Amino acid sequence: MTAERWEKLTGWPLTAAALVYLAAYSVEVLAQPRGASAVAVEAVIWVTWALFAIDYAAQLLLAQERWVWFRRHLLDLLVVVLPMLRPLRLLRLVTILSVVQRSAGTALRGRIIVYVSGASVLLIYVAALAVLDAERGAGGPIQTFPDALWWAFVTVTTVGYGDYFPVTGLGRFVAAGLMVGGIALIGVVTATLASWIVERVGAESQESGDAVARLAEEVSELRRAVEREDARGGDGAVATGSGA
Amino acid sequence: MTAERWEKLTGWPLTAAALVYLAAYSVEVLAQPRGASAVAVEAVIWVTWALFAIDYAAQLLLAQERWVWFRRHLLDLLVVVLPMLRPLRLLRLVTILSVVQRSAGTALRGRIIVYVSGASVLLIYVAALAVLDAERGAGGPIQTFPDALWWAFVTVTTVGYGDYFPVTGLGRFVAAGLMVGGIALIGVVTATLASWIVERVGAESQESGDAVARLAEEVSELRRAVEREDARGGDGAVATGSGA
Amino acid sequence: MTAERWEKLTGWPLTAAALVYLAAYSVEVLAQPRGASAVAVEAVIWVTWALFAIDYAAQLLLAQERWVWFRRHLLDLLVVVLPMLRPLRLLRLVTILSVVQRSAGTALRGRIIVYVSGASVLLIYVAALAVLDAERGAGGPIQTFPDALWWAFVTVTTVGYGDYFPVTGLGRFVAAGLMVGGIALIGVVTATLASWIVERVGAESQESGDAVARLAEEVSELRRAVEREDARGGDGAVATGSGA
Amino acid sequence: MTAERWEKLTGWPLTAAALVYLAAYSVEVLAQPRGASAVAVEAVIWVTWALFAIDYAAQLLLAQERWVWFRRHLLDLLVVVLPMLRPLRLLRLVTILSVVQRSAGTALRGRIIVYVSGASVLLIYVAALAVLDAERGAGGPIQTFPDALWWAFVTVTTVGYGDYFPVTGLGRFVAAGLMVGGIALIGVVTATLASWIVERVGAESQESGDAVARLAEEVSELRRAVEREDARGGDGAVATGSGA
Repeated sequence: MTAERWEKLTGWPLTAAALVYLAAYSVEVLAQPRGASAVAVEAVIWVTWALFAIDYAAQLLLAQERWVWFRRHLLDLLVVVLPMLRPLRLLRLVTILSVVQRSAGTALRGRIIVYVSGASVLLIYVAALAVLDAERGAGGPIQTFPDALWWAFVTVTTVGYGDYFPVTGLGRFVAAGLMVGGIALIGVVTATLASWIVERVGAESQESGDAVARLAEEVSELRRAVEREDARGGDGAVATGSGA
Repeated sequence: MTAERWEKLTGWPLTAAALVYLAAYSVEVLAQPRGASAVAVEAVIWVTWALFAIDYAAQLLLAQERWVWFRRHLLDLLVVVLPMLRPLRLLRLVTILSVVQRSAGTALRGRIIVYVSGASVLLIYVAALAVLDAERGAGGPIQTFPDALWWAFVTVTTVGYGDYFPVTGLGRFVAAGLMVGGIALIGVVTATLASWIVERVGAESQESGDAVARLAEEVSELRRAVEREDARGGDGAVATGSGA
Repeated sequence: MTAERWEKLTGWPLTAAALVYLAAYSVEVLAQPRGASAVAVEAVIWVTWALFAIDYAAQLLLAQERWVWFRRHLLDLLVVVLPMLRPLRLLRLVTILSVVQRSAGTALRGRIIVYVSGASVLLIYVAALAVLDAERGAGGPIQTFPDALWWAFVTVTTVGYGDYFPVTGLGRFVAAGLMVGGIALIGVVTATLASWIVERVGAESQESGDAVARLAEEVSELRRAVEREDARGGDGAVATGSGA
Repeated sequence: MTAERWEKLTGWPLTAAALVYLAAYSVEVLAQPRGASAVAVEAVIWVTWALFAIDYAAQLLLAQERWVWFRRHLLDLLVVVLPMLRPLRLLRLVTILSVVQRSAGTALRGRIIVYVSGASVLLIYVAALAVLDAERGAGGPIQTFPDALWWAFVTVTTVGYGDYFPVTGLGRFVAAGLMVGGIALIGVVTATLASWIVERVGAESQESGDAVARLAEEVSELRRAVEREDARGGDGAVATGSGA
């Protein structure tokens, strides 16, 4: 079995597993189940974890150049090995957006907007869950889910009031990921706007493309002139021949 | 009646309604009227709300593909349905800027600067009003309009000192919108500057446009050479003919 | 006297006046002189203010279209009329950087870097002076010049810890200007980097300019071919004529 | 000995010295050695300092235009003279990344990503060390290395909660450098994204490059037509000659 075939076969099942993980993780953090339900939720989380671990191992085995693959997928290894990074795996859910992409048309900027919006919502939600999980009972200011959501929003936009902030190592680790996500978010928004403005300004002023188009027309006309000349030159030769 | 005709007919009346709404909302939040005047202000607010609801319904009915229109105007629906989003409707006022645009010339970057400045001022003012409305009496630090304005400015620039911050759900919702506006603001400023610098740097170094212009000249000269040749070739043939 | 002549004549004297103003303002805020020296410093500040007011009036009178000039120089009016905006006038000092520009070479990006660095340093220094002037004795956290400088730096980079923040209206006004300056600063840095990266990436891949250059060569060769043909065609006609 | 030869000879030894300095500085700040080990660590720091001072002096002596070299290396002078800037010298370590660059391929954007990631990690680590060194025992909130790391991360992303902040002059100096680094970081991320999006959008729409390519094809075809004509025109002349 090739690596491509494996990826194709496991794509949708793994996305489904990520969704199940998200649901189970949400229930664990928000509802804080006890007894049998806690065991069930924990079991679901471990099963989905096992699926991702198996996927990682299979991809590594199937890779043509294992060392290259390993070096290029260090993040995947971290996600599988470190329990504190588990939520990151949920970003895989953004692949679901490929469905939405189709309806948003084929324009690159349209797809970027859909992707960034989806990734931002998912990032904020998962970071709020993870930070609440880490901070609850740690004596810090983040103790409820609405506060965690508010904190995640204030952090990802790099506003950072400081009314809520994580105090545990794990919570700060989640926050660091969220801040990096925030910088990427601002970067993508700015870059997309810049691309749009550069294009529009270019379209408004005399375009290099337009100049080339006019030049191409000129060349075409020239070619027709040469071909006419070619034809007439041939006639001339014939006339000369007949005149001899 | 077509959708275009409806939009054309209702454009200015709705902008006027938004202005009236802004004035009434400002009076309600800042002057906190009581008795008959409170009823009058509330009535004005409800009437303008009704106008926007009617506009939404009419546009939905007149749309050629209702489902597509509905999906593309989700924000409009939220603005009509959720009272907490009402201030957002006021951003429609920015259309008034189309008048100012004319005097700012036709350059895209000039128009962007006018539009962004207008939208920022409106966004900060409306967000300050809305957050004060939400926070007053909630025990948070934002209790006066100057403080709310200061908070809005500190938030939209993503500085976020944390001397003022919302504590109610509604206030945080307004803050979230303001932060998103701030990221968009920074993005537009940066993108406009980038477009300007890219253009200027391009103009300073040898331009691709210049190369194309020189090339076009070369081609024109070539065409004249071919046409001269064409004419002389014709003459030559004639001369040959007359020589035979 | 024309407006251009006035600007040329008053350019350096006004820059000197701005420098004197900066020195006097620094002394007033930092040394807090009393008695005769306080009167002297105040006198210097008023004289430089008068110079700028006269310059504003003269420029308005000399302008060809006074209304257009007035609308395009609203900021200058504010600087002259409102005492709280006086420090803004000092940004005129950045024109001194035109001297430094010469040694930095003629590249646009080099000049932008010099200009932005100079404007940032001036902005931070003046904002720290102005906020200290406004906040001293107002009960807020900013009470010494080093703290004011630190606050200005934290604000202009949009970090905004919140350990220092203005509490007076005037101080917040200065802060708002500083935040706007910070957004512009980030925007210019990003835009300059973007322009550099876009150029370098373009230079690395096959350049559109290169393609045009190769095309121009092709056209030149073509033209030489046509001219050779032209010459030979003429010879042919001559040969035919001599053959007749 | 020329300046180029000196730079080539001392490149790797100086990078090694910077690494040794980083290790010794880390030990001094984190382990706070006493007695003989403190003396040893201090000695290592002074020896590496001396190496950099010698390098600075040698480069200045070997420079062809000393004054130009001096003006362009003001930062190097500051690093050698001011003890508080010593950590900056460690950024030289990023040259080690040139090794990693090779494996990341030759694409400019790939190299930028590797360089920025490496510089960010080094900047955060060194700034955390330096601020802890400055703040420890000063009564501010930053008293442990994990807190200093967290503070550095919150600062470089310009989030700035304000739960930790420096209170000493030296600590604030380090913070200022970190903030400038943060703005540069955001700028580089955004600019790289912008370059990528501009390129992709350009590739998706009709490219100016494509138009030039089509034009080049047209010109080639034209040239072939002219050459065919040239050849036939020659034949015609020969035919005419033979007909005479």
